[in-house]
Amino acid sequence: MNTIFNHRSIRKFKPDEIPMPIMNRILEAASRASTTGNMQVYSIVVSTEKEIKERLLPCHFNQKMVVEAPAVLTFCADFNRFNQWCELSNASPGYDNYLSFFTAAIDALLASQNAALEAEANDLGICYLGTTTYMADQIIEVLNLPRGVVPVTTIALGYPDEKPPLTDRLPMDAIVHWETYQEFNPERIKAIYHERESSDFTQALLKENQKETLAQIFTDNRYKKSDNLFFSKKFLEILKKQGFMNHDE
Amino acid sequence: MNTIFNHRSIRKFKPDEIPMPIMNRILEAASRASTTGNMQVYSIVVSTEKEIKERLLPCHFNQKMVVEAPAVLTFCADFNRFNQWCELSNASPGYDNYLSFFTAAIDALLASQNAALEAEANDLGICYLGTTTYMADQIIEVLNLPRGVVPVTTIALGYPDEKPPLTDRLPMDAIVHWETYQEFNPERIKAIYHERESSDFTQALLKENQKETLAQIFTDNRYKKSDNLFFSKKFLEILKKQGFMNHDE
Repeated sequence: MNTIFNHRSIRKFKPDEIPMPIMNRILEAASRASTTGNMQVYSIVVSTEKEIKERLLPCHFNQKMVVEAPAVLTFCADFNRFNQWCELSNASPGYDNYLSFFTAAIDALLASQNAALEAEANDLGICYLGTTTYMADQIIEVLNLPRGVVPVTTIALGYPDEKPPLTDRLPMDAIVHWETYQEFNPERIKAIYHERESSDFTQALLKENQKETLAQIFTDNRYKKSDNLFFSKKFLEILKKQGFMNHDE
Repeated sequence: MNTIFNHRSIRKFKPDEIPMPIMNRILEAASRASTTGNMQVYSIVVSTEKEIKERLLPCHFNQKMVVEAPAVLTFCADFNRFNQWCELSNASPGYDNYLSFFTAAIDALLASQNAALEAEANDLGICYLGTTTYMADQIIEVLNLPRGVVPVTTIALGYPDEKPPLTDRLPMDAIVHWETYQEFNPERIKAIYHERESSDFTQALLKENQKETLAQIFTDNRYKKSDNLFFSKKFLEILKKQGFMNHDE
């Protein structure tokens, strides 16, 4: 499927709006993804108004594409609607626990990837925003997400105003294991990362950041332990606040 | 994209093996999905041997398709390889926390949906197995998953030996919210579930299970509070055991 193999993240968008028939097709594509027991325990908040996108902007570390993209799609794990249906149906929902959150997150994430691909098949570009889990509490506030709803990922969506090259990937044996997991050894790790580490791009990056190794760019700059700890605790608090951490009998 | 709109879960497979070029293309398709910071913090364990699939069978509540499908793909959140690379690169990984697990789970789930769609585009059928998170500890044992690796979903893969109809979905306004979240009221909930509740299929199901409402089939039979609680605690324990719950400074 060419769409899959042509994917690149787009961070610069034209101001052109997305025609409603195309938007609807993207959302329907999302709804065709597998969902646990056909419960469809997710939701998609489509934000196109300037004011809403401006309020989402700081939630995504002020990445300009959030306001420049004509649409920002926030994918949420969502047991709110299902719980309300149960209550109205003389049924007692038992979905206020971590497993239910994770189940709903799977639903939301599979739907998001369908939306991303359908968008790309219609000449749109997308970028996933990992900031969603870091700043879930602020997003909950901006989008008025009720109890039972947690944002898990976001897609910025619009017509591309750039054509970046395909992103390099590690050799396939970095991610694929046959039959059972084949544990790595230092030689294999070195072989897997060799090409990426020795590229001109990496060499320039090391010089620019005055780092000795590419891994240090990740551990010291991009994904620091102190940030991860801070956002971990925050996200776990949100799961509790949104009603997914009740583990008493 | 027709493949997306033709998806149905396949639970009966022909014994035909998957040709290696097609399998490789499916795995490559997985690798083209977006991944946080291009870290590719996931892995795919492809199990095709009868003995391994038989050991996976009880992990998936003895659903026969696990042994009948020529291949079972287990998608894992995986910081093991990345951590080893950091250690070898004079860098201190700080990825033993919940945020890192969830980041890696997103990677794994987006990759799984690409694999599913590429498989379907090549006339294969797939079924997602939600049992993966319920029985993650047993899967970890069967597949020898080291610390830093947690299975998050599984796809059974093979040539379809059935052609089920498309699954019904709720009306789109059940999952899509414009601009911000539009909270439901009882009338809207009833309207959303009306068609599904009044179908012949549901009526037969209620009779068969001697239940009053469709929601009760979910709360009392399929996804019971006691099971959810049990598997929630188990999954959180696994996250701890696999090294993703260290939140001390």
